[in-house]
Amino acid sequence: METAIVIYIIGLALAIEGVLMAVPALCALVYGESLMPFLWTAIICFLIALAFTRKRPDSGFLFSREGYVATALTWIALAFTGMLPFLFSGSTTSLADAVFETVSGYTTTGSSIFPAVEELPKSILMWRSFMHWIGGMGILVFMLAIVPFSGGTQMNIMRAESPGPSISKIVPRAQDSAAILYKIYTVMTAGLIITLVALRMPVFDAICISFGAAGTGGFSVLNTGCATYTVAQQIVITVGMAAFGVNFSFYYFLTIRKLGLAIAMEEVRWYFIIIFAAIALISVDLIRAGLYASGAMAVKDAAFHVSSIITTTGYATTDCNLWPNLSQGILILLMFIGACSGSTGGGIKVSRLLIMAKAYKRELAVALHPNIIKKVHMDGKAMDENVLRNTGAYLFIYFVIFTASVLIVSLDGFDWLTTFTSVASTYNNIGPGFGVVGTMGNFSELSDLSKWVLSLDMLIGRLEIFPIMLLFTKNTWRRF
Amino acid sequence: METAIVIYIIGLALAIEGVLMAVPALCALVYGESLMPFLWTAIICFLIALAFTRKRPDSGFLFSREGYVATALTWIALAFTGMLPFLFSGSTTSLADAVFETVSGYTTTGSSIFPAVEELPKSILMWRSFMHWIGGMGILVFMLAIVPFSGGTQMNIMRAESPGPSISKIVPRAQDSAAILYKIYTVMTAGLIITLVALRMPVFDAICISFGAAGTGGFSVLNTGCATYTVAQQIVITVGMAAFGVNFSFYYFLTIRKLGLAIAMEEVRWYFIIIFAAIALISVDLIRAGLYASGAMAVKDAAFHVSSIITTTGYATTDCNLWPNLSQGILILLMFIGACSGSTGGGIKVSRLLIMAKAYKRELAVALHPNIIKKVHMDGKAMDENVLRNTGAYLFIYFVIFTASVLIVSLDGFDWLTTFTSVASTYNNIGPGFGVVGTMGNFSELSDLSKWVLSLDMLIGRLEIFPIMLLFTKNTWRRF
Repeated sequence: METAIVIYIIGLALAIEGVLMAVPALCALVYGESLMPFLWTAIICFLIALAFTRKRPDSGFLFSREGYVATALTWIALAFTGMLPFLFSGSTTSLADAVFETVSGYTTTGSSIFPAVEELPKSILMWRSFMHWIGGMGILVFMLAIVPFSGGTQMNIMRAESPGPSISKIVPRAQDSAAILYKIYTVMTAGLIITLVALRMPVFDAICISFGAAGTGGFSVLNTGCATYTVAQQIVITVGMAAFGVNFSFYYFLTIRKLGLAIAMEEVRWYFIIIFAAIALISVDLIRAGLYASGAMAVKDAAFHVSSIITTTGYATTDCNLWPNLSQGILILLMFIGACSGSTGGGIKVSRLLIMAKAYKRELAVALHPNIIKKVHMDGKAMDENVLRNTGAYLFIYFVIFTASVLIVSLDGFDWLTTFTSVASTYNNIGPGFGVVGTMGNFSELSDLSKWVLSLDMLIGRLEIFPIMLLFTKNTWRRF
Repeated sequence: METAIVIYIIGLALAIEGVLMAVPALCALVYGESLMPFLWTAIICFLIALAFTRKRPDSGFLFSREGYVATALTWIALAFTGMLPFLFSGSTTSLADAVFETVSGYTTTGSSIFPAVEELPKSILMWRSFMHWIGGMGILVFMLAIVPFSGGTQMNIMRAESPGPSISKIVPRAQDSAAILYKIYTVMTAGLIITLVALRMPVFDAICISFGAAGTGGFSVLNTGCATYTVAQQIVITVGMAAFGVNFSFYYFLTIRKLGLAIAMEEVRWYFIIIFAAIALISVDLIRAGLYASGAMAVKDAAFHVSSIITTTGYATTDCNLWPNLSQGILILLMFIGACSGSTGGGIKVSRLLIMAKAYKRELAVALHPNIIKKVHMDGKAMDENVLRNTGAYLFIYFVIFTASVLIVSLDGFDWLTTFTSVASTYNNIGPGFGVVGTMGNFSELSDLSKWVLSLDMLIGRLEIFPIMLLFTKNTWRRF
C-alpha cells in the first residue's frame, strides 16, 4: 500500500469540502442564520487538508488498490467532517445521528433521523441537499475534473467511485470525462431549478429539491415531503428524477448529436420499459383498491413513486404504507433494481440485471446444446467475460451483506417489513422504506447499533461494495 | 426434439409409480381401509404406461435437451397421477388442493392444505410420506438403477434430476451410481425407522416420519407435528434430518473406507459449521428472550428447527411464530441456504454459495491486482469456469422467479411475512413458513391462484429451475 498518495487524495477532498461550505454559508447569510457551523467546519477541513497535502507524494501514480482505498477512506473522512455542521448548529447532539444524516446525504440516500425538518435552520437544510448534489456525481470525480493527475491514476479513482459493472468513461481521457459529466450534471440541475421556480415553487425549495433529484438523494425541506407541491410541480419532479437515473453517456451522445448511439443503449431502453410497466401495474392496483377517485391522480402518484424509487431518490407525495400489497411489492422490487449505471442513482443497476439475464439465456442455450460456444452481447458488442464474472460475484456479496444487515437490525424488534425495508432503503441509497421507516416516517426510532450498521450499508451501497470491503481485506494492507 | 424417447421415459416412470401404489395399499390392508383409491390409481398409471411404452424408440439415445424435458414432464405427470388417491378417497375435492399436496409430497416440500391430518386415512398419510421418500432421491434416478440405458442417456437424466451445481456421479457408470445412492438411502432410512421404534415411537409414525426425514419432506402424521414425540425421539429425528442433508458422496466415501476424501469435502464441512453456528445463535436468542426456562430445552428446539429448515425438511416441535426476530431471521436465511448438493435436501445448496463466495474472493484479489490470473479451487481441485458461470446465472434466475412469485401471492392480501415465507418455503421445498403458513398453520387459506403458483415453484425448486424453464423456451421444441 502506497499510503502517501492515499493521504494526499483525502487531503485534497477535504480541502474541496471546505470550499463547498460556502454554499450553505451563503444560505445562512441570506436567511440571517449563524455562519459559525460552516465556518468552523471549513477551518477544520482546511487544517486537516493542509496537514495531509503538505508534500505531493514522490510516486505520482495511483494503482487500482490505492484507488479503492483512497475512495473508501475519502468518503469516510467526508462523513466525519460533513457531520460537523449538524453538531455545531445543535441540530442534533448524537454522534450516531449526525453521522447517519451525513452519510445519508453524501450517499444520496435521504433517510433522515429528523422527525420534523421544518424546525431546522434553512442553511442546514441546504447543506443536507447540497451533500446529495456533491455525492451524486462524486466528490472524487469532481476532483478529477479540476486537479491534474496521470491517466492511470484518474482511471483508478473513477473506477472506484463511479457506479456500474464497468467503467463508464465517456471519452478516452478520464479528466475530460469527469468535466463533461459535471457539465451535463450542472446544466440539467439548473434546468430543473428554473422550471420549478417558473411553476412558482419557492426558490429555496426549488434549489434543495433539485439538488436532491439531481443526486437522486431524497432529503426534503417540508415535513410533508413533496405532498404539498402542486400537481404540475410534482410532475416536473417526476420527470426530473427519472432523467437523472439515466446513464449520462446517453446525454453525452445527445450533445454530440449521436442519436443512434443514444437509442442503441439497451440499459436505457430497459430502464424505461421497467418504469412504464411498474407505473401501469401500480396504477391499476391503486384504482382496483379504490384508493383514488380519479384515475389520473392514481397515475400521477404511481409515476411519482416509481420514478422516485427506481432512481433511488426517495421523495414521496403520499403514505405508501396505505397502498395495497402488490403496489408495495413492486416498489420494494424497484428498490433493488435501481437506476442505470453511469447515473447518479443507486441500487443493483439495470445493466447488472440485464447482464445476468443475458448470462442466464446463454445457460439455457448451453443446457439444450452442451457444446455450443456463445458470447453474451450488450449494445451490439460482445461482452468481456470478466465483467460477467464480476457481476455474478457482485450480486452474491450484495445479498450476503444485505442479509447480515437485516439480521442485525432485526435485534431492534420492529416488524419484518420495517426491518427488511430499512436495510433495502439505505443499502440501495433510497431513503424511506415501509412500516416505521415509511414515506411519512423516519429513522429516529432505530437503535444506535442499527444506525451505525445502516450508515455503513449506505457507504457500501454507494461505493458498490468493493472499496469498502477491501478495507477489511488483509491483502490490501500488504507492502505489495 | 426427439419426442419418442421422452414419451417412453414418462411411461416407464408411471409404470413404476403404479407399482409403488403397493406401499399405501399394504397400509390400507393393515388398517382395514379402502384399497380402491390406490388400486384405481395403479390401473390408470399402468394404462397410460402401456400406451406410452408400446414400442421402444428406435434411437436409444437421449440428449441433454431430451433429458431435461423428460425429467420435467415426468414430474408433472407424476403430480397429476399421484394426486388421484387424494381425490378417490375423498380427502379433498379441489383439484388445486390435490395437485398442491401431491407436488408438495414428491418435491419433498411438506407444505399441506390439510388443516387436520389426523382425520385422514392412515393409508393416505402413508402415501403422502412415501411420496417424500420417492421424490427425495428421485424416481428417474430409481429408474436408472433398475432399467438399462446407454451411458450418455443415464448421464443426461441424472444431470436433470439430481440437485447441485455439477453432476454428482459417485462412480463412473451412472447406473451404478444410482444403485449405490438408493442402497445408502434405503439402509439409512431403515436405520432411522428401527431407532425410532426402539425408542417406543408407534411403528406407523416411525415409518412415515423416517420417510419424510429421509426425503427431507416434512408431512407429519399428527396435528401437532413432532411436538408430542419424546425428547429422545426428537433428538433422533434432529440427527436423522441433518444426516440426509449431507452430500451422499460423503457416505459412499465412508463405505469404501476413504475417510480422507470424506473429510476433505468442503461443502459438508461448511454445512456443519452453518448448522452449529445457527444453533448457537438461536439458542442464545431464545434464552435471552426468556422463552425457555431450561437452556437444554432451548438448545434442543433450536437444533431441531435448524436441522429441519437447513435440510429443507420442515418438521416442527413448536410454534416458531413466537420466536424472537433474530431467531426467525436466521431460520428464514437457512431456508434459502438449504442442504448439500447430492443430498435429498432443497434450497440454493451450500456448494453454490461456497462457489460464489470463492468467486467473490477472487474478484477482491483482481480488484487489488487487475492483472492477476487466479483459479477457483474446490476440494483441492481447480474448478471448471463453466460451473462458476452457471452458478451465477442460476442465482439470478432463482431470485427472479422468487420475486415474481412473491408479487403474485401478494395479491392474496396476507401480511408480508406470510407472503414472503410462503414462497420461500415452497420454492426451497421446506414446508412451513411464518405467519399464517407457520409451523402450526397450513396453506389451506391461500387462493387457488397462489396454490397453482406455489405448486409450480415447488417443482421449479426441486428440479433446480432449468428443466422447467426449458419447457417454456422456444428453442427446446425446435426440430434440432
